Amino acid sequence: MGRTSTARERLLDATGELMQHRGYSSLGVAEICAAAEVKKGSFYHFFTSKQDLTLQAVNAYWEGQRGAWTLALDGPDPALVRLRRLLEGMAQVQRHRKETCGTVDGCLLGNLTLELSTQEPDVRARLEEIFDEQTALIGDVLSQAADEGDIPREHAEQSVARAVIAHLEGLVLFAKLKNDPAVLDTLWPHTLLLVSAEEP
Amino acid sequence: MGRTSTARERLLDATGELMQHRGYSSLGVAEICAAAEVKKGSFYHFFTSKQDLTLQAVNAYWEGQRGAWTLALDGPDPALVRLRRLLEGMAQVQRHRKETCGTVDGCLLGNLTLELSTQEPDVRARLEEIFDEQTALIGDVLSQAADEGDIPREHAEQSVARAVIAHLEGLVLFAKLKNDPAVLDTLWPHTLLLVSAEEP
Repeated sequence: MGRTSTARERLLDATGELMQHRGYSSLGVAEICAAAEVKKGSFYHFFTSKQDLTLQAVNAYWEGQRGAWTLALDGPDPALVRLRRLLEGMAQVQRHRKETCGTVDGCLLGNLTLELSTQEPDVRARLEEIFDEQTALIGDVLSQAADEGDIPREHAEQSVARAVIAHLEGLVLFAKLKNDPAVLDTLWPHTLLLVSAEEP
Repeated sequence: MGRTSTARERLLDATGELMQHRGYSSLGVAEICAAAEVKKGSFYHFFTSKQDLTLQAVNAYWEGQRGAWTLALDGPDPALVRLRRLLEGMAQVQRHRKETCGTVDGCLLGNLTLELSTQEPDVRARLEEIFDEQTALIGDVLSQAADEGDIPREHAEQSVARAVIAHLEGLVLFAKLKNDPAVLDTLWPHTLLLVSAEEP
């Protein structure tokens, strides 16, 4: 049983890792199995197809990320301090990735969104749900910041929350393009402008 | 001669069109030739490889876009009015695409950036040059807006110009994900927040 669950997890980890770096279409099941050290026969014990694997790898990725989001956004600090903690944590992930692997691989969710488009409708639908969940989480923290008097009430809305994530995803795109996490150094000050707030 | 140049242009057009919708890795030369109604033998008369074709398709795409950028950003209007004209024009392209083809395909440059990463270094290098050129163009118009007293001087800098493009690319990502160009309706008001300006 232990061995079985390990093979599935290894496949999910390898998929997340390889897909974040290389995208969806250029990867095959055989290569993923080789990286995970799992036989191809075992693969079909866990997943019906590459699409199914991708959907589950996206879920596993967001499961891990959601934990980091909740950790950063919860607690007794003012809402803007918690938002800064979240965004700086995300910049830190890209810096760490560059230090340990040599490349800024960006965000698996953003990468797959732009690559898959209308292909793979199940994966696309799940990506949309995840980004909606992220927008709602940021929307909540903006609403709390408005309650605390730190941002104008009219900015505590979904479209501003989406702008915050759009700006983040766009900067991650540039960090990936330039393979330079320093692009993310202006993430927080420019997010403050988007939400019309002063440094907390 | 006329026929020869037409075949090359058809290949570039088909590549831009297919790649914007489907990405790089899932496309093969045979499919591109079929869409362009060009024989595979002729393909290698114009291009040495799929990479070479992609590089030239990216150049052709930006050549067309640069014309639209220059047209929007030039003229006697205040700088912020010209910036709004550029951004609203880009939102309009996605709306038109949805109306005519049924899908928001996003930005070929952004799509390829996130898909290609460290693969295809020549294409990646060219994408970086193009985004740097875009950043410089936005930086110039911000500098003019500061001269006109419409934005604070300290915001007329490259990092703010990059934030404007990052926010645009991020919203285009969401418009593509949701296949809904209405996501771009907040592009201009939120760009004004990023550059700390009032509606001109």
